Amino acid sequence: MNSGTSAKQNINPDPGLVAEEYIEHIKNELKTLDLEINVVGYIASGDLPSLSYAKATKQKFEQVGIHYELKSVQRLELEEEIIKANSDENIHGIFIYFPIFGNEQDVYLRNLVDYHKDIEAGSLYWTRKLYANDRLAVSGEEDKKALIPCTPLAILKLLTAAGVYARDVEKPVKGKTVTIFNRSEVIGRPLAVMMSNDGAKVYSFDVDGPLLFENAKPSEITVTRKEALAQSDIVITGVPSKNFEKVSAKEIKAGTICINFSTYSNFEDDIATHTDVYIPRIGPMTVAMCMRNTLRICKNFHRL
Amino acid sequence: MNSGTSAKQNINPDPGLVAEEYIEHIKNELKTLDLEINVVGYIASGDLPSLSYAKATKQKFEQVGIHYELKSVQRLELEEEIIKANSDENIHGIFIYFPIFGNEQDVYLRNLVDYHKDIEAGSLYWTRKLYANDRLAVSGEEDKKALIPCTPLAILKLLTAAGVYARDVEKPVKGKTVTIFNRSEVIGRPLAVMMSNDGAKVYSFDVDGPLLFENAKPSEITVTRKEALAQSDIVITGVPSKNFEKVSAKEIKAGTICINFSTYSNFEDDIATHTDVYIPRIGPMTVAMCMRNTLRICKNFHRL
Repeated sequence: MNSGTSAKQNINPDPGLVAEEYIEHIKNELKTLDLEINVVGYIASGDLPSLSYAKATKQKFEQVGIHYELKSVQRLELEEEIIKANSDENIHGIFIYFPIFGNEQDVYLRNLVDYHKDIEAGSLYWTRKLYANDRLAVSGEEDKKALIPCTPLAILKLLTAAGVYARDVEKPVKGKTVTIFNRSEVIGRPLAVMMSNDGAKVYSFDVDGPLLFENAKPSEITVTRKEALAQSDIVITGVPSKNFEKVSAKEIKAGTICINFSTYSNFEDDIATHTDVYIPRIGPMTVAMCMRNTLRICKNFHRL
Repeated sequence: MNSGTSAKQNINPDPGLVAEEYIEHIKNELKTLDLEINVVGYIASGDLPSLSYAKATKQKFEQVGIHYELKSVQRLELEEEIIKANSDENIHGIFIYFPIFGNEQDVYLRNLVDYHKDIEAGSLYWTRKLYANDRLAVSGEEDKKALIPCTPLAILKLLTAAGVYARDVEKPVKGKTVTIFNRSEVIGRPLAVMMSNDGAKVYSFDVDGPLLFENAKPSEITVTRKEALAQSDIVITGVPSKNFEKVSAKEIKAGTICINFSTYSNFEDDIATHTDVYIPRIGPMTVAMCMRNTLRICKNFHRL
């Protein structure tokens, strides 16, 4: 199988539809396994887009038969709530709507979630496994697969749906060049590590400048945004700022796969006519991958 | 014993001299215990003040008989170095000169240090214990005391040396009001939690505004810097920015205990004549507390 070097072979996946396929699969597996799963989602923000996202998550989880309790809490209550949920045997998964404090304390809270219940897989237990390329949730137990953070996983699955990420190939993106704008510990860096581990040459940009990832290892590099974009077969953006200079059609090759996971649009509108594959938002897939992680966590740790 | 409500009873401790007392004590204990301890310190910066601080740390450790290897590494090598040091049985303590990346990746690196070797006590294992007021390093083992992050510990010991923090009293700062400028996860927040647990009313300021800590619990509060400072018996600053509006004599009560732990001076020079206790830098005490933690970690975990 050709892994798709020409844009013509790629298709533009609808994240909502791809998500539905996964959701259908999870629903059937849950029915077969006859599991009763309880997830609690914590929201500490009153702003309407966050609330509506939270309600949509709840609806999706319940659609497959996972009980999802959405709890509104004060930000200063969250720490104790997480500690209580960690030790509550009737809670199998915990989801948190970040940002809460918007600083280092959010990292603390994310890592406070017991990894046995961390369905977002954003805590250190899981990111360390990812960086170490350790595929098992518990070392020595071959039947228990490690979790991957939801958003990077959602992006890989969308690239698979687009035909650019071949299934069952050892180095599915070998020979591809990728640029990622974002090097956060739960999205950009794990994604750069995974894609470079899968064969790609990855330029990773953040406010401090670029790094090059090859074979899952970073190195210092001097490359401009312009140079990196001109070479890239795949461009992935996740800059949570309206001040980011949007990536425009003239900066990229025709046919470059473009994916934005920021809540802000990081691409100019002219991208849509310049490539066959432009995914401006991935939201439904992140939620679907979180549900997939929930199922995996229950199979790994909660023999119900 | 009067815990010191009047400035007259307080003395202005020299952090270097207080540190020497601890160092002497550690030296003697090490001689008695006949321990051979190896610590590795990682520096990933070439700037001269950092290098000179690193060399001073090494000298202090070696002065008490702890072998201290100072390793210069590239920032991208540090992750693997920490992983190697974690599994090296001949390394008992790890020290890292932050900042490295100056972002969330530093939190990742700090937490990558095995808590059995985390002599700075900045990793989640120790800060969680502190927030939970759990005084034991290993639950159920009464002889193994938990570690406290070096800088907050250094500040408490300096307050003790100043006479404001009474020894062997259940609530040594009961009735005192404290303002702390800094709410980081390894210094400002642990310090606010500990001092409020020890009886103080603590106003904690960071760029997002104030919080009030009482009995180790935070609550939302509307208070201005001016109001907080006017009430405070103790003011502690740790803002790593030259843009911080320095605290001046006219903002505080006469006799207010003033401590700065930032590398920038966060107080105006007129503070010195306005109070008996002004500690403009605490550096030597932080290193001494780190050595104290090293000894404790070896007694807890490395039966040599």
